[in-house]
Amino acid sequence: MISKYQNIFRSYLDASLNYSNPKNLYDPYAYILKLGGKRIRPILLLMTYDSLGNDIRSALPAALSIELFHNFSLVHDDIMDEATLRRGKATVHKKWDINTAILSGDVMLISSYQCLEPYNPSLFKKLTNLLSHTSRIVCEGQQFDMDFPFQDSVTKSEYLKMITSKTAVLLGCSMKMGALIGGLSENESDIFYNYGIHLGIAFQLQDDYLDVFGNADQFGKKLGGDIIENKKTLLYIFALNNSSADQKKKLLKYFSLEFSNSNEKIKLVKDIFLTSGAVKEIKNEIDFYKEKALKSIEAFPVSNKSKELFNNLTLALMKRKL
Amino acid sequence: MISKYQNIFRSYLDASLNYSNPKNLYDPYAYILKLGGKRIRPILLLMTYDSLGNDIRSALPAALSIELFHNFSLVHDDIMDEATLRRGKATVHKKWDINTAILSGDVMLISSYQCLEPYNPSLFKKLTNLLSHTSRIVCEGQQFDMDFPFQDSVTKSEYLKMITSKTAVLLGCSMKMGALIGGLSENESDIFYNYGIHLGIAFQLQDDYLDVFGNADQFGKKLGGDIIENKKTLLYIFALNNSSADQKKKLLKYFSLEFSNSNEKIKLVKDIFLTSGAVKEIKNEIDFYKEKALKSIEAFPVSNKSKELFNNLTLALMKRKL
Repeated sequence: MISKYQNIFRSYLDASLNYSNPKNLYDPYAYILKLGGKRIRPILLLMTYDSLGNDIRSALPAALSIELFHNFSLVHDDIMDEATLRRGKATVHKKWDINTAILSGDVMLISSYQCLEPYNPSLFKKLTNLLSHTSRIVCEGQQFDMDFPFQDSVTKSEYLKMITSKTAVLLGCSMKMGALIGGLSENESDIFYNYGIHLGIAFQLQDDYLDVFGNADQFGKKLGGDIIENKKTLLYIFALNNSSADQKKKLLKYFSLEFSNSNEKIKLVKDIFLTSGAVKEIKNEIDFYKEKALKSIEAFPVSNKSKELFNNLTLALMKRKL
Repeated sequence: MISKYQNIFRSYLDASLNYSNPKNLYDPYAYILKLGGKRIRPILLLMTYDSLGNDIRSALPAALSIELFHNFSLVHDDIMDEATLRRGKATVHKKWDINTAILSGDVMLISSYQCLEPYNPSLFKKLTNLLSHTSRIVCEGQQFDMDFPFQDSVTKSEYLKMITSKTAVLLGCSMKMGALIGGLSENESDIFYNYGIHLGIAFQLQDDYLDVFGNADQFGKKLGGDIIENKKTLLYIFALNNSSADQKKKLLKYFSLEFSNSNEKIKLVKDIFLTSGAVKEIKNEIDFYKEKALKSIEAFPVSNKSKELFNNLTLALMKRKL
């Protein structure tokens, strides 16, 4: 269903990688862009534009802009998070070094603006302002995330604000760009934006859930990583709020110490997540945002056939079937 | 002469620092912008616009854009260069940490785009494209500079390309933005751009010269830093090209070893710079670009009085009297 968009985007992306000098600037740039991934953001943008019945090629520059912005944020976030692997390969700062990752990230961010240059001045300005607005929020989200380990506690609303900023707004931006290029007004485009926000929150909360309770093969990474890193996810926040004084004390202890046996730590924390009702609560939360996303689709000014495609995409994404 | 521009810019800058949350993102942002400096780039932009006879306030958003971009590049370059001091104060990555410097730099770059939003779509697009084009070249210049230590040799043209990219294009961009906002065509604006390029090259070459032969008080930093860091400046390149086989061998040796006595190293290298004729040659080069800059002013489509102001500014900058 989405391979049509993936293929046309991949060809466009490959053709765009025509910078080569200085090599140490553009090699990492091509490397991270070629690592692949599902290209969810460009697909959302292209599907939106396509649902409005236009020649899909007009939306490709914006789709590339979003993918470049996303990759810029991955490269810089990977430095900050000291991540060594990205999609199973060495991160840019590991394969090269931190300086190279900073500078090639910078030039990706600049490129994401340059991608929008083919659009006429009026549309260019709308898209550029949306990109800037979104980019600033994404940076703020990364800062909120970096601040969490130093906070005594994190509330549900702080956590939702962080994932909305860090993840969801870029999905909203992708949808809205597709709608704006398709000629819709700001207001009409915001229906698509809101869908992206809800989908983004649902997806990220599910990601947090699968990090603990997923199937390692299907999830594609080692389980329990968030627990090992003492991440204050919504599961943890719910567990703290709901558990008995005794459980709460234990949970705080597990999250303040480096357990030598990490499997034991994962097992103990999982148990509290389950018995405290946090798992039930996070599932309700995921459903809440998934339903909001599905509900938004009903208001899209597109054909029923297109709505069905968006419904299917939403369900497939939430089932990790993409 | 320029304090009028400095004052109006400072007020505008102060009023613009209205982001506060998250604190760890926006504190470093305000810190670096308030460190001061001569604000050469905004001044060039405002002077250009003013010379075209318009209300100077219309050019302030673009002047701030340029200053934000410049400060973004300082924050990221200081990480890469492991610089600890900037204008006599701790660099952002020293006062906070590398992650904070990366992310607050990113948001400064994004802000530099957002500053341009007050302009109408047609002008907005011209200014945004110019900012992107310039920004990419500045990143490439930083990469060339980072590559030099790993190259066996650096040619004069490679060195000039590096300083043009890293320093001069942003001065050109400042001038051109002022001209575009003033309503000039692309072609007319390029006369101002070219002035900025020539001024930027002359200024940077003089900076290299003063790093070795300047007056420490007037220059504002410790002399001989480039020699200690084995920087392949144009002085070094000229000295290598012009010196006798014996001198050349010595120079290569000094630049490949860490001398325990750095004052001795500076003295020996200075001597070769003088006797090889490199000093004479660099002075000719500085004059060549200074004259080109002064010559460009003649073609500015502005009053003679304004031309005189640009002349005076050029001479004052080259005499470090600002």
